[in-house]
Amino acid sequence: MNEPIKKIALLTSGGDAPGMNAAIRAVVRACTYYRIECVGVYRGYEGLIEGDFEVLSGRHVSNIINKGGTILKSARSMEFKTVEGRAKAYENLIEAGVGALVVIGGDGTFTGGLKFIQEFNFPVVGIPGTIDNDIYGTDFTIGYDTALNTVVEVIDKIRDTAGSHNRLFFIEVMGRDAGFIALNTGIGSGAEEILIPEKDIGLDKLEESLAKGRDKGKTSSIVVVTEGEKIGKSVFELGDYIKEKYPAYDIRVSVLGHMQRGGSPSCFDRVLASRLGVAAVECLLDRVSGVMVGVINNEVILTGLNKAIKLNNEIDKELLRVAEITSV
Amino acid sequence: MNEPIKKIALLTSGGDAPGMNAAIRAVVRACTYYRIECVGVYRGYEGLIEGDFEVLSGRHVSNIINKGGTILKSARSMEFKTVEGRAKAYENLIEAGVGALVVIGGDGTFTGGLKFIQEFNFPVVGIPGTIDNDIYGTDFTIGYDTALNTVVEVIDKIRDTAGSHNRLFFIEVMGRDAGFIALNTGIGSGAEEILIPEKDIGLDKLEESLAKGRDKGKTSSIVVVTEGEKIGKSVFELGDYIKEKYPAYDIRVSVLGHMQRGGSPSCFDRVLASRLGVAAVECLLDRVSGVMVGVINNEVILTGLNKAIKLNNEIDKELLRVAEITSV
Amino acid sequence: MNEPIKKIALLTSGGDAPGMNAAIRAVVRACTYYRIECVGVYRGYEGLIEGDFEVLSGRHVSNIINKGGTILKSARSMEFKTVEGRAKAYENLIEAGVGALVVIGGDGTFTGGLKFIQEFNFPVVGIPGTIDNDIYGTDFTIGYDTALNTVVEVIDKIRDTAGSHNRLFFIEVMGRDAGFIALNTGIGSGAEEILIPEKDIGLDKLEESLAKGRDKGKTSSIVVVTEGEKIGKSVFELGDYIKEKYPAYDIRVSVLGHMQRGGSPSCFDRVLASRLGVAAVECLLDRVSGVMVGVINNEVILTGLNKAIKLNNEIDKELLRVAEITSV
Amino acid sequence: MNEPIKKIALLTSGGDAPGMNAAIRAVVRACTYYRIECVGVYRGYEGLIEGDFEVLSGRHVSNIINKGGTILKSARSMEFKTVEGRAKAYENLIEAGVGALVVIGGDGTFTGGLKFIQEFNFPVVGIPGTIDNDIYGTDFTIGYDTALNTVVEVIDKIRDTAGSHNRLFFIEVMGRDAGFIALNTGIGSGAEEILIPEKDIGLDKLEESLAKGRDKGKTSSIVVVTEGEKIGKSVFELGDYIKEKYPAYDIRVSVLGHMQRGGSPSCFDRVLASRLGVAAVECLLDRVSGVMVGVINNEVILTGLNKAIKLNNEIDKELLRVAEITSV
Repeated sequence: MNEPIKKIALLTSGGDAPGMNAAIRAVVRACTYYRIECVGVYRGYEGLIEGDFEVLSGRHVSNIINKGGTILKSARSMEFKTVEGRAKAYENLIEAGVGALVVIGGDGTFTGGLKFIQEFNFPVVGIPGTIDNDIYGTDFTIGYDTALNTVVEVIDKIRDTAGSHNRLFFIEVMGRDAGFIALNTGIGSGAEEILIPEKDIGLDKLEESLAKGRDKGKTSSIVVVTEGEKIGKSVFELGDYIKEKYPAYDIRVSVLGHMQRGGSPSCFDRVLASRLGVAAVECLLDRVSGVMVGVINNEVILTGLNKAIKLNNEIDKELLRVAEITSV
Repeated sequence: MNEPIKKIALLTSGGDAPGMNAAIRAVVRACTYYRIECVGVYRGYEGLIEGDFEVLSGRHVSNIINKGGTILKSARSMEFKTVEGRAKAYENLIEAGVGALVVIGGDGTFTGGLKFIQEFNFPVVGIPGTIDNDIYGTDFTIGYDTALNTVVEVIDKIRDTAGSHNRLFFIEVMGRDAGFIALNTGIGSGAEEILIPEKDIGLDKLEESLAKGRDKGKTSSIVVVTEGEKIGKSVFELGDYIKEKYPAYDIRVSVLGHMQRGGSPSCFDRVLASRLGVAAVECLLDRVSGVMVGVINNEVILTGLNKAIKLNNEIDKELLRVAEITSV
Repeated sequence: MNEPIKKIALLTSGGDAPGMNAAIRAVVRACTYYRIECVGVYRGYEGLIEGDFEVLSGRHVSNIINKGGTILKSARSMEFKTVEGRAKAYENLIEAGVGALVVIGGDGTFTGGLKFIQEFNFPVVGIPGTIDNDIYGTDFTIGYDTALNTVVEVIDKIRDTAGSHNRLFFIEVMGRDAGFIALNTGIGSGAEEILIPEKDIGLDKLEESLAKGRDKGKTSSIVVVTEGEKIGKSVFELGDYIKEKYPAYDIRVSVLGHMQRGGSPSCFDRVLASRLGVAAVECLLDRVSGVMVGVINNEVILTGLNKAIKLNNEIDKELLRVAEITSV
Repeated sequence: MNEPIKKIALLTSGGDAPGMNAAIRAVVRACTYYRIECVGVYRGYEGLIEGDFEVLSGRHVSNIINKGGTILKSARSMEFKTVEGRAKAYENLIEAGVGALVVIGGDGTFTGGLKFIQEFNFPVVGIPGTIDNDIYGTDFTIGYDTALNTVVEVIDKIRDTAGSHNRLFFIEVMGRDAGFIALNTGIGSGAEEILIPEKDIGLDKLEESLAKGRDKGKTSSIVVVTEGEKIGKSVFELGDYIKEKYPAYDIRVSVLGHMQRGGSPSCFDRVLASRLGVAAVECLLDRVSGVMVGVINNEVILTGLNKAIKLNNEIDKELLRVAEITSV
């Protein structure tokens, strides 16, 4: 029979997201509550291999709930992709008396966790932390809501100057292969058009939409664009293309970039992170492994890591309609 | 047979909330989209009686999606509580050729709308706009998410000074008879204790909790308190009571007050307001009346105004547990 | 002949202010630059007496430039007001090999420092840190600019709801006996009237001013009031007085309180704190003692602590005129 | 003898800046106070030629003190660079009964105003509004302080993620040919290195500085760079150069762009704009023309437009030293 878990290790991996620290705090506090020990692993799977561990107490997580980034740092690890690397990591955990692992991150993070379970039958639970909201098994990933607010606040500022100068702005936001950030911030900032991977509107539709706005006397416009290729063009190429075809437009391009990953988390993200951090610890105490904890319809739901990795979160088609109607 | 609706009137009533302007914009845009006219009514039911109307075009709602308050203003109307007042309001609407009414607000707003339907069989649809989140039939009311962020940002600032001086702060937040704001901001700001109407912890438990924190070496503490009576005391009496009983505490009281109702809406509130504004217009075009549009489990759901008024939104019991565990 | 200073002690005392951490960082960095040691003293003069010291390295001050509060904490010390207390503090410093002391705070902080110089001929330099801007010898105290921004941001929010409801708000801001915060935030937030200790406008003038606004059709008003007695009344009594005399007004009172002391410092305060922190260390290395470092007309200026304590910073009379003209 | 001025025209021109609306409000309010009329000119000199005028009343400027951008809009005008264009503008002003002109903007704006005075002897006063702070004759231009805060807030967010991933960020900020924004935000955000046009540190010094940081165990770094050519390279080329030479660095480049021009103005900018707006009107009433109103050593100072255009504002050399010491 298995012994009860006495020590849990915790790491953050992949792109960082606001609210990761709130999740770390919740995991540590839940460990305290259930009288088990929590070991922080620095720099993700890299630190797991190097044995870069520290026992985390209440002192480590006091006053971090409102801080962006991750106090445990994050890193990509090539070595963890090798059997030898993972074996080393496993030995470090066993040696440290750790009985289970909580990993906070996205697809790549969960893939690493899944390998670990398969090879060593070591209990792992995942917490979805990424601003992109592209994880199956949860309505919201930690950091997504904060990123939405960061983006609309910046677009509000850009609109001030766009409106003063009658300009057309192409604004590139993050999201990898998913249009969640672009679609929601496009609606939230009152963008005239939104370009997302899930719906190729084509250049014709974009041009038509801009022409319609101009005919109605709109003197400035915002187009929100998901990073990566759009309509076969980069956002700068897109700007150049429109500029050449419609010289009357005074066009500017702005790539929001990494600021979207930082900042103090929103209340929503702090509460979400607190819920999921507690849930992850309780899962492990209940002998559940191989799952990601998420929130669906406002309830904590478990999803197999395998499924969380393979399936995609779908954007809400209704929002596409709302975007079209409100940008009329 | 009924004629198709050609003109919709729109008002905001009750306490204002961030995102009301985004909802106004969405209603106006949806009207444009469906080629009907939108008439704005100033100062709620008071303006309905006085015929304080203005046709709203795209120009009126451009650049308001990010503004707090309501461009239509809000007011309490004693006259609308009389049959004569309502009759006058009805005549004004008929005279202006208005075929339906959208009301944005809370319980009181919907009560007025319901009366209006009952007496004149006039189509009315409600949109929930209040920071308190105390409306049955929607997971979130417009303005609630923004208020949560406003409160945690302020408590973050207070914690800076609380931590520098080893002080105990009692912070009163809004919420009327509901603990949504207190519970979520209490978790989100890492409060040591949260006092809400839904769960009377009693003075003993509060004192015990503070004592426990002190024993663990916590040198500063935040207690978030819902407005209204708590444990039979006002927040100032509560502060005085603890101060007298535990002279060692350096106690401060802060009442956050009306700032919670203002500010630029969060992306979440802007998107929610856009969805509900569009949904309200589509309801009326579909000949649906007497309902409130809300979002439950991320879908637009209709709830009878009667039910929305009579029933209460319940706080999430799981969050009480999360609060307890993470404040350990 | 005196030996060169090898070790500097540093403390913060009195009410904390945003930017104190930036000043601490600058002092520590300047010590590193000039190859001397910096000893942090916790909880102000209290920690000086108790010997609550820690050597501060780069690690201690990394990532604190943007944090509110003070990592060294602050406290009031009754014991330091006694000869015995100060003697104990002196002994601790000597024992720790400390050759000079930097104190960050306001009048009370400098009074303590001056006593220390007089009794033990121990080198002390002061840095003005308080949101109130009431220190003679500097155009700006550290924290003042941040507090101004905090206050106008909150009043912007309150104006959203004031404007939606046609209300009159009395808003109390900090400032002790000085109207700097009220006067500047009153102008900056477009307040209809500003009540400051330096200029008793009297109730008559206030009533006249409100009446004039009403006559011009102003439907909402903001009156910014410095804390402490105004026109012989507390801000609540003032609200009640106007409410009783002019029942037509829908009056609200908001006391902003301690949030004004917290928050991430503005760029201005961070740069000011960095300049003054460096200047304080350079003073001591140059064998200058008994002074406060300040910025006057954008240059670092030294003022005797005695003078800094006794004299008052005067508000800018021209601003009173600007306030009157722009609130017309 | 000259008649008294009864009507003043007002325009904003060039790149917009936060606080321009506060200045517009102050000009309008001062006109009301002195019982003269204020005519707003839309889209700068372009609107002057087209006669795009509107009489501005209190209603136009209520609730704009906190808004970014300019309600009068801005534009570049090629036609105003021709004698014919200016003659047309002059005729429009005379026809409208306008006796004097206030122009808000930067160098280009003042050049236009100066031409106008020279050719038509028409009274013009300038107000410095630009985020770049590159105008001689004032310690601060309107919008500069707000831009500093916007930039440090964004860099704070980027540092969250830089610190979590041990990355080196090159961040490009605005400033045209002046390093004010880069130098102050570099100090304010605790940047490891600052590249400004006024001080060519050379690639060697930059590499040395980065190496020093790495040797001290700094795992993430921020380099703030003024827009335009630096060290003969664009910021992207600079990033590539370092990346190639030091493959160990994980380098990211972020161009902050137009968001720096927008946003709600800081209290400092609102008060500055209020002072300068009032001063501009009072100048014209006092028959002063051909000057820019600025603030030097906290007093309103007049500078000939000719001088304001030709001379440059110098950065504070002391700050270079502070930057070096605090980034040690």
